Amino acid sequence: MSAISVPPPKCLQKPLVVPHRHMFGPGPSNVPPRILELSLGCMLSVLMPFSIMSDIKSGIQYMFQTQNKVTLAVSGTGHTAMECAIFNTVEPGDSVLAAVNGIWGERAADMAERIGARVNTIVAPPGGCLTIEDIEKALSKHRPVLLFLAHGESSTGVLHPLDGIGKLCHKYNCLFLVDCVASIGGAPVYMDQQGIDILYTGSQKVLNAPPGTAPISFSERACQKIFSRRTKPVSFFLDLSCLANYWGCDGKPSRGYHHTGPVTAFYSLRESLAVLVEEGLENSWDRHQKVAEYFHAGLESMALKLFVKEKHLRLPTVTTIVAPHGYDWKEITSYIMKTHNLEISGGLGPSVGLVLRVGLMGCNSSRANADMVLAALRDALKHCHRSKV
Amino acid sequence: MSAISVPPPKCLQKPLVVPHRHMFGPGPSNVPPRILELSLGCMLSVLMPFSIMSDIKSGIQYMFQTQNKVTLAVSGTGHTAMECAIFNTVEPGDSVLAAVNGIWGERAADMAERIGARVNTIVAPPGGCLTIEDIEKALSKHRPVLLFLAHGESSTGVLHPLDGIGKLCHKYNCLFLVDCVASIGGAPVYMDQQGIDILYTGSQKVLNAPPGTAPISFSERACQKIFSRRTKPVSFFLDLSCLANYWGCDGKPSRGYHHTGPVTAFYSLRESLAVLVEEGLENSWDRHQKVAEYFHAGLESMALKLFVKEKHLRLPTVTTIVAPHGYDWKEITSYIMKTHNLEISGGLGPSVGLVLRVGLMGCNSSRANADMVLAALRDALKHCHRSKV
Repeated sequence: MSAISVPPPKCLQKPLVVPHRHMFGPGPSNVPPRILELSLGCMLSVLMPFSIMSDIKSGIQYMFQTQNKVTLAVSGTGHTAMECAIFNTVEPGDSVLAAVNGIWGERAADMAERIGARVNTIVAPPGGCLTIEDIEKALSKHRPVLLFLAHGESSTGVLHPLDGIGKLCHKYNCLFLVDCVASIGGAPVYMDQQGIDILYTGSQKVLNAPPGTAPISFSERACQKIFSRRTKPVSFFLDLSCLANYWGCDGKPSRGYHHTGPVTAFYSLRESLAVLVEEGLENSWDRHQKVAEYFHAGLESMALKLFVKEKHLRLPTVTTIVAPHGYDWKEITSYIMKTHNLEISGGLGPSVGLVLRVGLMGCNSSRANADMVLAALRDALKHCHRSKV
Repeated sequence: MSAISVPPPKCLQKPLVVPHRHMFGPGPSNVPPRILELSLGCMLSVLMPFSIMSDIKSGIQYMFQTQNKVTLAVSGTGHTAMECAIFNTVEPGDSVLAAVNGIWGERAADMAERIGARVNTIVAPPGGCLTIEDIEKALSKHRPVLLFLAHGESSTGVLHPLDGIGKLCHKYNCLFLVDCVASIGGAPVYMDQQGIDILYTGSQKVLNAPPGTAPISFSERACQKIFSRRTKPVSFFLDLSCLANYWGCDGKPSRGYHHTGPVTAFYSLRESLAVLVEEGLENSWDRHQKVAEYFHAGLESMALKLFVKEKHLRLPTVTTIVAPHGYDWKEITSYIMKTHNLEISGGLGPSVGLVLRVGLMGCNSSRANADMVLAALRDALKHCHRSKV
């Protein structure tokens, strides 16, 4: 009969040492002790009482500024929430419009195509944004059931204006889906007032919780489309009718077993929302804005250029710096990691090779940390190899 | 303009206290301090170095007894891995056969139907299993591209025999997909020797890591079908060509950004695999088997009946006890939770109302814990209300 043929691996017989590091890339960001400890307690008791889910729901409603009943956290990362939004709202053959402002719009288009949607895109200039007129023209031409827009485009560092778009979408009978993974808590978003129909984020940016849970909310209008679908969503795991029941959002008296959630991550998420409540949304927005302005001024005083030219389009959480002329950007990020124990990153998608990206999010958003990054950059520009071009 | 209209919720202004509890339901199980602490360290440094991913890969290869290159952990729960397996191997119009042995076979059938497969099922009697003949007849009739089977059916408590099925599948040019969420580490599985093409599990059962990551492995044969698909899988997040690259399984020199994994959960998973390596697979199988036999004998000595009649079909990790005649099973589980601070559960899917389920998995699998459950049950049968029927 059968016998063990794969021996125990040696690599797992050595203890693991995890170094501490400043996580100033575009996310995940550092997790503060309070959120850390909470998760520790929960690991002893891997329970998911309804009161925790209810706390999380209230916290998300506050963070998103919404009264939506169908507000919950997906058991997965930001990408899972993105698929949850698209899988539930779109049926095969539906027209979908993706505003491409960087990598996230491209991914949304790819996801919608995979499930058989007819996808069109409107592309913003790199580091810029779309106008209301661009959007109206595309809505009127393609008559989509869903418009995707990334509010905080972490690949280009753009904070895309939201005002007026929701109203426009509704005029054309289209749902407005917004990705606020990189922006929520760091810049104002008013889900209900701005007519956003589906809004999602991740746990690992401004919230400072470990990655692995993703808050999401659906408007009444979104639910109407979702709950009158002709076909089932492609995913059982992300089927909103199951998730809404699991999270007690559907008004039914009993919650069924749907899946085993990442319980410890949910405890951390609950605590990260409590931290946001404690500071207050407006204070958090204000702090991120002020730290970003201070950081940007510091960069400009070193003759570094910001990738996003227009000040009001700059994302306060993730800053894109034009890759310094004559340097290899990879040498800069490696040098800073090695010498300053500090993670910043290069570009992503359309910004690869063009920028350095620095994230100062949640507990990491402070003048002291901005100074630390500025000093590290100054040091790197002095010590990294510079071509004579 | 817009203004805050959803006030900070009061529920998040109170500190959270998490009680300790014995988690002896069908999972998640308790997380021991060592795995706990590791995850704590990582929260300070939310990095995902390749060496950790490589350690995890080796650990899964050992746990699954496979040499498969495409071995990784999905950023999600067991359900996510289930969808990952089905989404990648099945194209619309493909024939899929689900062995229904409890809830998991039903869910696999549902998932395959959602993506347009032609799904047939073969149903085992409750608490029993399918014969090789049943399976061959169905393979020959339906000519599926994929057969799904749950090895450890946690809803009925059945450990389904695996020997011979892989060979049979390959004779009919069918891939053999096995769910070992509830069994791996607690009962022998030899992925390569048993001809299993896709095998997945969760982190929260015998491994005792927090829920939220799911080991999975694909045979060469499975990869051939997957990498020569005519259509893209419905999910970008679970597309194996992306995941294989992210995990460095595709032989390409550079790993691209795919998504942000639940890093802290991966650190815990790495440590839980190290614990399994330290004990040794065979010792772990043996311990679970002996504890289960001890526990089952104890139950029978109390005149409780096991739901699975045939001894060799009893899952050593999750025991299903016939709901004691004349009692309300819900009163029993509530009493035990309240009085003994110990979680056991009722049935699931086809076993609802018929059974009590007790999980003794990983670090929880010990004679002392079996005794604790036996004492709690004895106490509950004495104190819970008994009808005069």
